[in-house]
Amino acid sequence: MTLQILLLNGPNLNLLGTREPGVYGSVTLDQIVTWATAHAQTRNAELQAKQSNHEGALIDWLHEARGWANGVVINAGAYTHTSIALRDAISSVALPVIEVHLSNIHAREEFRHKSLIAPVCVGQICGFGWRSYLLGIDALLGHLGALGQPI
Amino acid sequence: MTLQILLLNGPNLNLLGTREPGVYGSVTLDQIVTWATAHAQTRNAELQAKQSNHEGALIDWLHEARGWANGVVINAGAYTHTSIALRDAISSVALPVIEVHLSNIHAREEFRHKSLIAPVCVGQICGFGWRSYLLGIDALLGHLGALGQPI
Amino acid sequence: MTLQILLLNGPNLNLLGTREPGVYGSVTLDQIVTWATAHAQTRNAELQAKQSNHEGALIDWLHEARGWANGVVINAGAYTHTSIALRDAISSVALPVIEVHLSNIHAREEFRHKSLIAPVCVGQICGFGWRSYLLGIDALLGHLGALGQPI
Amino acid sequence: MTLQILLLNGPNLNLLGTREPGVYGSVTLDQIVTWATAHAQTRNAELQAKQSNHEGALIDWLHEARGWANGVVINAGAYTHTSIALRDAISSVALPVIEVHLSNIHAREEFRHKSLIAPVCVGQICGFGWRSYLLGIDALLGHLGALGQPI
Amino acid sequence: MTLQILLLNGPNLNLLGTREPGVYGSVTLDQIVTWATAHAQTRNAELQAKQSNHEGALIDWLHEARGWANGVVINAGAYTHTSIALRDAISSVALPVIEVHLSNIHAREEFRHKSLIAPVCVGQICGFGWRSYLLGIDALLGHLGALGQPI
Amino acid sequence: MTLQILLLNGPNLNLLGTREPGVYGSVTLDQIVTWATAHAQTRNAELQAKQSNHEGALIDWLHEARGWANGVVINAGAYTHTSIALRDAISSVALPVIEVHLSNIHAREEFRHKSLIAPVCVGQICGFGWRSYLLGIDALLGHLGALGQPI
Amino acid sequence: MTLQILLLNGPNLNLLGTREPGVYGSVTLDQIVTWATAHAQTRNAELQAKQSNHEGALIDWLHEARGWANGVVINAGAYTHTSIALRDAISSVALPVIEVHLSNIHAREEFRHKSLIAPVCVGQICGFGWRSYLLGIDALLGHLGALGQPI
Amino acid sequence: MTLQILLLNGPNLNLLGTREPGVYGSVTLDQIVTWATAHAQTRNAELQAKQSNHEGALIDWLHEARGWANGVVINAGAYTHTSIALRDAISSVALPVIEVHLSNIHAREEFRHKSLIAPVCVGQICGFGWRSYLLGIDALLGHLGALGQPI
Amino acid sequence: MTLQILLLNGPNLNLLGTREPGVYGSVTLDQIVTWATAHAQTRNAELQAKQSNHEGALIDWLHEARGWANGVVINAGAYTHTSIALRDAISSVALPVIEVHLSNIHAREEFRHKSLIAPVCVGQICGFGWRSYLLGIDALLGHLGALGQPI
Amino acid sequence: MTLQILLLNGPNLNLLGTREPGVYGSVTLDQIVTWATAHAQTRNAELQAKQSNHEGALIDWLHEARGWANGVVINAGAYTHTSIALRDAISSVALPVIEVHLSNIHAREEFRHKSLIAPVCVGQICGFGWRSYLLGIDALLGHLGALGQPI
Amino acid sequence: MTLQILLLNGPNLNLLGTREPGVYGSVTLDQIVTWATAHAQTRNAELQAKQSNHEGALIDWLHEARGWANGVVINAGAYTHTSIALRDAISSVALPVIEVHLSNIHAREEFRHKSLIAPVCVGQICGFGWRSYLLGIDALLGHLGALGQPI
Amino acid sequence: MTLQILLLNGPNLNLLGTREPGVYGSVTLDQIVTWATAHAQTRNAELQAKQSNHEGALIDWLHEARGWANGVVINAGAYTHTSIALRDAISSVALPVIEVHLSNIHAREEFRHKSLIAPVCVGQICGFGWRSYLLGIDALLGHLGALGQPI
Repeated sequence: MTLQILLLNGPNLNLLGTREPGVYGSVTLDQIVTWATAHAQTRNAELQAKQSNHEGALIDWLHEARGWANGVVINAGAYTHTSIALRDAISSVALPVIEVHLSNIHAREEFRHKSLIAPVCVGQICGFGWRSYLLGIDALLGHLGALGQPI
Repeated sequence: MTLQILLLNGPNLNLLGTREPGVYGSVTLDQIVTWATAHAQTRNAELQAKQSNHEGALIDWLHEARGWANGVVINAGAYTHTSIALRDAISSVALPVIEVHLSNIHAREEFRHKSLIAPVCVGQICGFGWRSYLLGIDALLGHLGALGQPI
Repeated sequence: MTLQILLLNGPNLNLLGTREPGVYGSVTLDQIVTWATAHAQTRNAELQAKQSNHEGALIDWLHEARGWANGVVINAGAYTHTSIALRDAISSVALPVIEVHLSNIHAREEFRHKSLIAPVCVGQICGFGWRSYLLGIDALLGHLGALGQPI
Repeated sequence: MTLQILLLNGPNLNLLGTREPGVYGSVTLDQIVTWATAHAQTRNAELQAKQSNHEGALIDWLHEARGWANGVVINAGAYTHTSIALRDAISSVALPVIEVHLSNIHAREEFRHKSLIAPVCVGQICGFGWRSYLLGIDALLGHLGALGQPI
Repeated sequence: MTLQILLLNGPNLNLLGTREPGVYGSVTLDQIVTWATAHAQTRNAELQAKQSNHEGALIDWLHEARGWANGVVINAGAYTHTSIALRDAISSVALPVIEVHLSNIHAREEFRHKSLIAPVCVGQICGFGWRSYLLGIDALLGHLGALGQPI
Repeated sequence: MTLQILLLNGPNLNLLGTREPGVYGSVTLDQIVTWATAHAQTRNAELQAKQSNHEGALIDWLHEARGWANGVVINAGAYTHTSIALRDAISSVALPVIEVHLSNIHAREEFRHKSLIAPVCVGQICGFGWRSYLLGIDALLGHLGALGQPI
Repeated sequence: MTLQILLLNGPNLNLLGTREPGVYGSVTLDQIVTWATAHAQTRNAELQAKQSNHEGALIDWLHEARGWANGVVINAGAYTHTSIALRDAISSVALPVIEVHLSNIHAREEFRHKSLIAPVCVGQICGFGWRSYLLGIDALLGHLGALGQPI
Repeated sequence: MTLQILLLNGPNLNLLGTREPGVYGSVTLDQIVTWATAHAQTRNAELQAKQSNHEGALIDWLHEARGWANGVVINAGAYTHTSIALRDAISSVALPVIEVHLSNIHAREEFRHKSLIAPVCVGQICGFGWRSYLLGIDALLGHLGALGQPI
Repeated sequence: MTLQILLLNGPNLNLLGTREPGVYGSVTLDQIVTWATAHAQTRNAELQAKQSNHEGALIDWLHEARGWANGVVINAGAYTHTSIALRDAISSVALPVIEVHLSNIHAREEFRHKSLIAPVCVGQICGFGWRSYLLGIDALLGHLGALGQPI
Repeated sequence: MTLQILLLNGPNLNLLGTREPGVYGSVTLDQIVTWATAHAQTRNAELQAKQSNHEGALIDWLHEARGWANGVVINAGAYTHTSIALRDAISSVALPVIEVHLSNIHAREEFRHKSLIAPVCVGQICGFGWRSYLLGIDALLGHLGALGQPI
Repeated sequence: MTLQILLLNGPNLNLLGTREPGVYGSVTLDQIVTWATAHAQTRNAELQAKQSNHEGALIDWLHEARGWANGVVINAGAYTHTSIALRDAISSVALPVIEVHLSNIHAREEFRHKSLIAPVCVGQICGFGWRSYLLGIDALLGHLGALGQPI
Repeated sequence: MTLQILLLNGPNLNLLGTREPGVYGSVTLDQIVTWATAHAQTRNAELQAKQSNHEGALIDWLHEARGWANGVVINAGAYTHTSIALRDAISSVALPVIEVHLSNIHAREEFRHKSLIAPVCVGQICGFGWRSYLLGIDALLGHLGALGQPI
């Protein structure tokens, strides 16, 4: 069976590649989605990617994912640090959610150290640029028991 | 060229598998090291694993790693939250260091949310049990440019 | 004259009944709306219910309510704790607003104890499950002088 | 069977009607007790009201209530914010307790926002003047399953 | 007309003279009451003194004072720092209240710096031993306009 | 060349003139936009004004402004104090942004003193009612070098 | 000479055995007093036990103990964390006081970690259920030099 | 022997009578000095009054007072809350210093509750308007043993 | 009638142009005063500029301004963040005061975010270099009704 | 069966008797160990004592104790307040641990009030000098059910 | 070339030798200046000493020193902890500044631990009485490269 | 008599010269020890230098120093900020200890501002690179009265 993954991106991530490349790198979100989709396919999984600057839209999509996805990889951007609503959405749906970040949020401004959604996610991966997404997919598939043996 | 990885484990991780399995799982440290070594080999890398309950020993090993390793994957255990000395050791040596944790430290007691070493590591991976180690190796090798193309 | 009540529900409340029933019970939002509407009718009042996961939509509806409603019963969900914009919307419109919650927010996580909207509402009712809504309607009608004599 | 309710009032509430009417209204405690008793009777419940300025007396009465009451409606006045002893008393007795306040405590001084007893009560109702008591009785009876069907 | 003053003393002040003389001096409460009574008489005022270790008793006496006293001089002892109930009692009665302390509370432990009753008193006098009481009487009479001309 | 200015207004500002006139004055947003547009024209600049109660819409418009505007004057309303997403949007686009407020936010409630967007704006102007907007336009044009000589 | 011990129990301890047995055990206060009395007798000491839910009563008894007791073992219950008056009473009387608790207060809610009376007691014993009382008696007698040689 | 008193007034007190009369009353500093001088004379003491808006000048005068004064009555105005230098000056000179304030500083803004000089003064008197000065003189003379018998 | 403006500059602003040009620019205070004076003249106002490193001198000048000025534009430099005395001076005089800063104080060190004088000023303008002064003059004249029609 | 006890002493306790006797008394660690061993023997238990200034050594010994001890009495010295690693070691081993201190840590510097290991120990005994150790042994044996009947 | 040193002393240091000798020693400021001058001469440097209780005067002298001094040794007294203006003065002038204190400020009251000027000084020397000044001169000359070889 | 000095260096200082030269300079620890030894010799003192990354080893050496050294110069590295055990070791041994740091710790990250050992050291010297050590030796010898006359 092919596993279905929702890849959710939050505010300002649509500007990736043009936005503060010193912090976030020069790769665009489209490239990341392409690489992530291909990466998922090599592990026999399908990935649907969505992005919005609207907190409510992210919540709506999480709710919908209950109908079709086996798990979620989310980069909630700035809402990571301010949205209890997103946190509640994650704990409301019965899906495993993996939190990823391009930059190492713990090495940046104090207000980015605290993730409101972390306590309701399976785990957190941050600091590896676009590769955080690929690692997040592996982490999710591993959590779902879809990666077979260790190694 | 084969890349060399130091896998460093901090206090109480020698009890893994017997210590609070509800939190840390039932896999032993030996098993994790075996799996991690094999995982590294499939990516053409060699891994040396060390564990100590002594803060000073961990620092000594980090210093020595300057002579032979290309990077470090570290689970500093409780020293993650109390050791500025370890933080200074990481920023003193010229090696990329990946921070990993078995459990999702952001979902546990307040005092485990803050990692003193995070700001001087490349990134952080936590919450995926023994799989955090394998993801950490991939993250390190990716950071070192040893994983080739995206995917 | 029939009094008009806006019943406003915030993020994730559309999942009610399926979302963490241990915390929120197994009654759906539709059932609550049905019961609340009937309850209002027995007190000679009409009730319109709206729900959104979008902070901005809740604010828009509050603004519109100035044109038709005599008062508001609101369960702002997680926006209760993060939205100064919602607070400003409440103090901007000239309507009495009653704050209700299904769970006892003061008995849950620290970050749910503080309600940003409470200081601009008439009062707060929390902890009684779906019955909080019925009590909220009575509180609003009482505040509007529509319940007649004490008792 | 007639349900028995203890209505407990804390410090300074005996001055009601004369004390700061701008904040607390001009209704006396006697009037409220009369109205609350009548309100309970319409729901087939009996109510006994007590008031004291002594923290210890309130605790003693809570202990005694284990012998005769089915539940408690309490306005603990200022002890709401300072008495862990009262909190322990509430959690010690096996009775459901409803917390009520005349004023909206969340809209007043910072030190009145925190209720030490809230986490061990069923729920909280505040801001509706003397009507908070009637709503509190309904909330208690609803919690005890004595109000029949929704509506 | 003779003005009536209530002199209220809180917990542990009955031990005065024997309790930590290094901090509180060796004068007993009886002596202070005697001196204060005589001091008031020279200003044509009568003084009634009460002491209790019970928070509730102090509140009861404040309530009663509405019936006979023109003002209050209070040394609330440790309840100064913990009793919001006493604060509410002071703001509930319509009498001017002067806060006095034997020791300079601002020069002692941190937790004695904050007076919960200060914001609802006319003013505060502390640090002058038994003489704080006499100054407190003068301050009260001055506030009541009973001291005639300046000087 | 005519400079293009985006004038962005956040939540509840559509109610201006009717909302709490004691705090915000009785001028409507339409009047302010009319005056601001005329003011800009006298300085040879064109102004487009937008308002939304949706955090995401404000972010979307900021992103779009990269294609046509030379700078932004923003009154983010309550999102000033809660939206890291808006802050990131401002630092993501390459445009100078001027922060304005009708009221003096530093003279109001504590939670309005902190502006999350201030550190990524050119500067802040607050407290001058509708005139803050005109001053903001001058500040922006000055920053862009469009005001000629000092004076 | 027979040493005299006051055993003082604070609020809600009269409910022991019935109150939250998961936390406090199923032994009643009467049993503990019986065991403690017998335990004291085997060490040639007499014990008088008192319990009250009134803060003032505990203070009164401490004052009285100056006339007859050689030392005090106190479980102040919730007043441990809120009563500066009790603290002052302990430092006012010239008796050694041993603080005991049934549960390990440092392993419970944050607000139970801080003991206001600890700094004026000889020492603290907590976490051993009813046995804390017996250890407290030994600690007091040891402090008074009544236990003879070490061992 | 005639006792010599320095009466020191800090910043903005020269505006007394015209400055915020709602808070500080309509009496001028000259009037207060006149009354205080006369008051001191009736107690056989001489008083020299100085005022400055310069922190350094107040310190200089305190230093000089070592040569001629027996004690100091000080209203340090806003420097009360910010000047450690003034505090050090008070503790450096060997004179008793009485702190007075016109208003009840504990009933005003939070930042006025903390007096940096209080811990090195004999005591504090606040809240009685110009009468605080006369009480301060009495407190100083009492402290110096110049008021004879109690009463 | 020609309006009179006091332009007050606090500590270290005399070094402007030579002091940390990266932060404050290379324009000297003399140049700013010249430009500000000319700017005021074009609006039919006269401006007197003063600068001092002495907190007391700034207060003295504010007091004097009551006799001749219609309003004040102040850059209090570092005293902005430490001087309650300056704050009291501003609220003591009956003049409108505009707070300006060269740099965006909200984008600098944490201790520069808080302005003690802001709550008693009409408004704040910061971040526009020397242009902040000109904007401040416009803001003041607008506040005084001297700028005629909007635009 | 003879119960086996590990008595663990942390940093600087080897200096006991010579180190700050005013705080810690003049008894040496050797004497305490001798007395504790004898005390244990009278209760039919054997005791092995170890001391180290190395955090890691204390952890190692705790791990080893799983193989031979029935319980632990620990005075962790300063590591009590800084070592999460020690805390984790205690919760990792399946042994009951009793925390003891010579001095009353709650009556000393603020930073000694918080014990990081307390939440994972059975209970805490502090303030009784060397006698704390004997009480700790009794507490441990009582916890293990080895002391027979109450008394 | 002879190096020129400004030795700056802040508030209350003129009282040295008479002020709290238990804390500051019995040496006067004159003696220290004499010794410091001689000490500087043995290192081929000239020293000018100034003292003031006025914050503004210290700032003025720092500004002037730009014209003649090669570096500054400063004991800012209490202004160390309160003066951002002094801090700005130090960072404004282009001179190396060495911070010295007679007492060990880190071993005194909490409010003396924080030095506002430390972050803009070369380094800090405290706790060595008058010898701190001589060490400060050596540190400055070393920093200026005027002490030749190590040793 | 030749004075004996222990020079103690803590974690990561063995990497000096290679570790973050921007912060710590390019001089190695060996060079510093050589220079410090020679510097001590010119003052007729002998110096023994030790370095360890182990907290326990530093404590052990401090204990041993009681047998042979007249004083200690310590750079505790990161343990400065985390080790209460080291602080206790310093206060346990009867030797004067001088705290030195290469960098100005008060100008770095917040967590380096607080020295746990400072309150039990004679004084602190920081910010002068390797010269801090030489100044530390002079400070120690001066404290021991071995430097003769001032100058």
